[in-house]
Amino acid sequence: MANKKPEVTKGPLPASHKIYLSGKIFPEIRVPMRAIRLDSQYIHVYDTSGPYTDTEARTSIDQGLPRIREKWIRERNNIQTHDNCYPKDKSSINDSKKTPNFPISHQIFSTRGGITQIAYARAGIITPEMEFVAIRENMARDHDPSTSITAEFVRDEIAKGRAIIPANINHPEVEPMIIGKNFLVKINANIGNSAVNSSMSEEVEKMVWAIRWGADTVMDLSTGRNIHNIREWIIRNSPVPIGTVPIYQALEKVNGVVENLQWKIFRDTLIEQAEQGVDYFTIHAGVRLAHIPLTINRLTGIVSRGGSIMAKWCLYHHRENFLYEHFDEICDIAQRYDVSFSLGDGFRPGSIADANDKAQFAELKTLGELMKIAHIKECQVMIEGPGHVPMHKIKENMDKQIKWCNEAPFYTLGPLTTDIAPGYDHITSAIGAAMIAWHGTAMLCYVTPKEHLGLPNRDDVKTGVIAYKIAAHAADLAKGLPGAQERDNALSKARFEFRWNDQFNLSLDPDTACAFHDETMPKENHKFVHFCSMCGPQFCSMQISHEIRNNGMQAMAETYKNGGDLYIPIHSDKDKKKLVPLKGLSKD
Amino acid sequence: MANKKPEVTKGPLPASHKIYLSGKIFPEIRVPMRAIRLDSQYIHVYDTSGPYTDTEARTSIDQGLPRIREKWIRERNNIQTHDNCYPKDKSSINDSKKTPNFPISHQIFSTRGGITQIAYARAGIITPEMEFVAIRENMARDHDPSTSITAEFVRDEIAKGRAIIPANINHPEVEPMIIGKNFLVKINANIGNSAVNSSMSEEVEKMVWAIRWGADTVMDLSTGRNIHNIREWIIRNSPVPIGTVPIYQALEKVNGVVENLQWKIFRDTLIEQAEQGVDYFTIHAGVRLAHIPLTINRLTGIVSRGGSIMAKWCLYHHRENFLYEHFDEICDIAQRYDVSFSLGDGFRPGSIADANDKAQFAELKTLGELMKIAHIKECQVMIEGPGHVPMHKIKENMDKQIKWCNEAPFYTLGPLTTDIAPGYDHITSAIGAAMIAWHGTAMLCYVTPKEHLGLPNRDDVKTGVIAYKIAAHAADLAKGLPGAQERDNALSKARFEFRWNDQFNLSLDPDTACAFHDETMPKENHKFVHFCSMCGPQFCSMQISHEIRNNGMQAMAETYKNGGDLYIPIHSDKDKKKLVPLKGLSKD
Repeated sequence: MANKKPEVTKGPLPASHKIYLSGKIFPEIRVPMRAIRLDSQYIHVYDTSGPYTDTEARTSIDQGLPRIREKWIRERNNIQTHDNCYPKDKSSINDSKKTPNFPISHQIFSTRGGITQIAYARAGIITPEMEFVAIRENMARDHDPSTSITAEFVRDEIAKGRAIIPANINHPEVEPMIIGKNFLVKINANIGNSAVNSSMSEEVEKMVWAIRWGADTVMDLSTGRNIHNIREWIIRNSPVPIGTVPIYQALEKVNGVVENLQWKIFRDTLIEQAEQGVDYFTIHAGVRLAHIPLTINRLTGIVSRGGSIMAKWCLYHHRENFLYEHFDEICDIAQRYDVSFSLGDGFRPGSIADANDKAQFAELKTLGELMKIAHIKECQVMIEGPGHVPMHKIKENMDKQIKWCNEAPFYTLGPLTTDIAPGYDHITSAIGAAMIAWHGTAMLCYVTPKEHLGLPNRDDVKTGVIAYKIAAHAADLAKGLPGAQERDNALSKARFEFRWNDQFNLSLDPDTACAFHDETMPKENHKFVHFCSMCGPQFCSMQISHEIRNNGMQAMAETYKNGGDLYIPIHSDKDKKKLVPLKGLSKD
Repeated sequence: MANKKPEVTKGPLPASHKIYLSGKIFPEIRVPMRAIRLDSQYIHVYDTSGPYTDTEARTSIDQGLPRIREKWIRERNNIQTHDNCYPKDKSSINDSKKTPNFPISHQIFSTRGGITQIAYARAGIITPEMEFVAIRENMARDHDPSTSITAEFVRDEIAKGRAIIPANINHPEVEPMIIGKNFLVKINANIGNSAVNSSMSEEVEKMVWAIRWGADTVMDLSTGRNIHNIREWIIRNSPVPIGTVPIYQALEKVNGVVENLQWKIFRDTLIEQAEQGVDYFTIHAGVRLAHIPLTINRLTGIVSRGGSIMAKWCLYHHRENFLYEHFDEICDIAQRYDVSFSLGDGFRPGSIADANDKAQFAELKTLGELMKIAHIKECQVMIEGPGHVPMHKIKENMDKQIKWCNEAPFYTLGPLTTDIAPGYDHITSAIGAAMIAWHGTAMLCYVTPKEHLGLPNRDDVKTGVIAYKIAAHAADLAKGLPGAQERDNALSKARFEFRWNDQFNLSLDPDTACAFHDETMPKENHKFVHFCSMCGPQFCSMQISHEIRNNGMQAMAETYKNGGDLYIPIHSDKDKKKLVPLKGLSKD
């Protein structure tokens, strides 16, 4: 199964085609967006799906995607190239189960420093990536110059550490994107096999499938065999940034014996992954030995995989977390390839009972300290957040993060707002995710219906992505981002005008919207009638609204606006007596 | 199809059985709850499912449910009985499609007043219904006397108009429940056929199915043929309050010609439905002629079916809404049978663009006035709310409702927090529903995945109910209701202890939770292992947490708590230099 060449989903979404915008500073950049064809216009939406939805593009999984950033990277100062020398997966495992090497080897880029996006930003230099994301952020908007995102604004936000562009110089296939509180809320989809389930070909398709529906980044959390090679296939074919948790692979290298982990193995794993092109690392450096006992009375202990691994290591050795102790060296590695950090929340609460406790906030404060070190080292940083948090405790997380972490992008998992709905945790968590994103969280890590129960399959990935697109978009609306409401308005207008196909095509999941409609009204002419099976022809409020408008309401409205009292009926004395509300009636 | 005797879903949920608690004031009352059997204890949860999940109860759809309240009602003052005389559905339609008459006729109760729950409450009298709901509200809680709900508290909340017990004296089958901001958040499921789709037997099963998963009330929104008979089958078999929108049936009586509606037809419909046992009426009396022009510039006009019907009538006749003009007579009818009001929001926004506009708030203010009239008439009232509202505009709805409607129970549809996800509006709206319920909304009307697309089927009903149980429970947690967290804690404890079956059985949907788990790990012994397919055996954070705890962390924690510095490593000078955060680094 693992040997099978991946089959990935290609082709545009309904009524959609890909367009590309050029830069002004960098005319050669081609910023993708999706144009949706409506009855009488096009609407442009943010597009994460990469070349797979471009009918003009040829993609071949064993060739990898076009290396669009390679030229930009080669033109940077101090760039060095050397041959690919990192280890392939060992062949000790059964060949039939082994993930093959990726067929093509590319030269590795590295540097002696000064080439991260934050380094350029602080130096006042706008990179092609910065202009790319500026154009990309605007496209779903109204193109009003006074509210549009400029490359200079992007540069400034990155320089301040308030936003990041995760884009390893060894992942030139990436279409740059930005994560920060003053930009569109982003979502991440986790994929990756486990020792129990799945294979490379399934995981590559999950990645392509996740970005088709809107995932802005993908984390490869593989923990089974062939981690290195699975990741290589994913990165070479991914137009979105890829994140990892390197401690997982380090642990595989010591055969799962936590106590045998050591800095050197971890360091080599970081370099290996950085040279492959991982765009951001989750590093659980905030799990400090002194704070582990704060988890002792928790209902659900430590639920972060990386957090529990590091806590076990610390306790076994009675030593401080080696990730904390070596954090500056970790920064040196990250800086060399422009790998961003996602500072992991190893003590995130795993239940409502454990939300916002001392362990969680002690770690958050530590993450703020580590962030400052990373910023000195010219590394881009985001901070991970919870977890399981009831609604009334959500805002405190954001407030503390802003206070302790200087508004560095917050990246949360949900949070789940109740524990009682396994099988529906995409919903329990979409509630919390929408709220925390409204308060300022920059990226939301999705939760699928399989959370707590098993490894998500392809369907679960889609469900999780759509739930999180909803949460992210709801937050964009609530934040009042310019133009965010354009798609809502277009869809509602289509709905009101009974343009059924436009309504489907504008929706986050046109296939499902159309299928649900067609379940009861499948005929082609049903796409033009002025009702659906919910209310039937006589009871469609929207149809009646049209009848009202056609019935001269405009003229009535004018009369009314001009002070006419035509529509304020004069009550008879009897009516007055009956209808005037009596003051002081209510008892409280 | 319509002639088929309904097949409904019966039998307990996994590991569950029904228990009943007696009253202290009224020893004969039997308050149902569901006991879930765990590894070493039982946990009791609120149970809306009625006798269908009681293995001891015999239910027969053509007999109807036991009339548990009949004795209480007969003992009230002024109760009169007369024979059932309201019209059956006309037989003009094809017999094979006709919904048959319900086989049993019961005598009708009516009164000359003074028998509504609010009338008793104001008179200082505790009814059996009040003690019933007090016991019912407590059962999912910790039984701490200082925080438990008393019958006197229930009486006081009803007297103040802050809560209602919708229970028509002609629906003695109902198990009383309470709706109010100081009680558990409730949810309503809409069912009912349309002219396009469905039949009586499907709708009866939808009702039983909806309450199995947690619907607290059910609205029968049928608009097709046989409205009267379909409703009769539903009411006679429903242990939860049934709501309707009587204007739908009135419109059927004038063959769908809005202009031909008139007060007399509507009044007769109200009496017909009240005598059948409808527990609450949605009345769109707040759609005032003078306010209709405020909707002229809306993106989606008037999207409430009842609202659009009344607006059309008003404009056609150039007259004030007859529901508004005759509201005191409507109250007289409602009071005679103790039918509660759900004052309909005919101008609720149908899109993000129309949220919180003048039309909506003009109507809300009117509803507050009507509420006061209803309270004078000793009628119980709740107020309906939106609709489509972005997150940042949700709280304003609640604030205005509290201000203008004296904290009468607010009953909202969602609200949906974005328009762009048809097919997933159970999620777009669960976000808004959870938030508005946290702010004080007493009941949430569910939205199913089919919203805007078609009539929900049985699966959609379940998905909608579960999504709304999540929203309601998330709000109960956020409101800090005593004991609300008990089930979360029990489930999280089961999760942490790898009691897989207990985790499933405690969840809102045990069937789905178990099926998702079994998809990758189906064997019986997989229910006892310390991992799932998500992380596999080596990477289970909870398993590692146990290893940490078994590893003497308790002792370490004690040392630490007692001021020991064992776990605060003394950095070397080199370390210090590297790790101390530099003040003043951040640029802003």
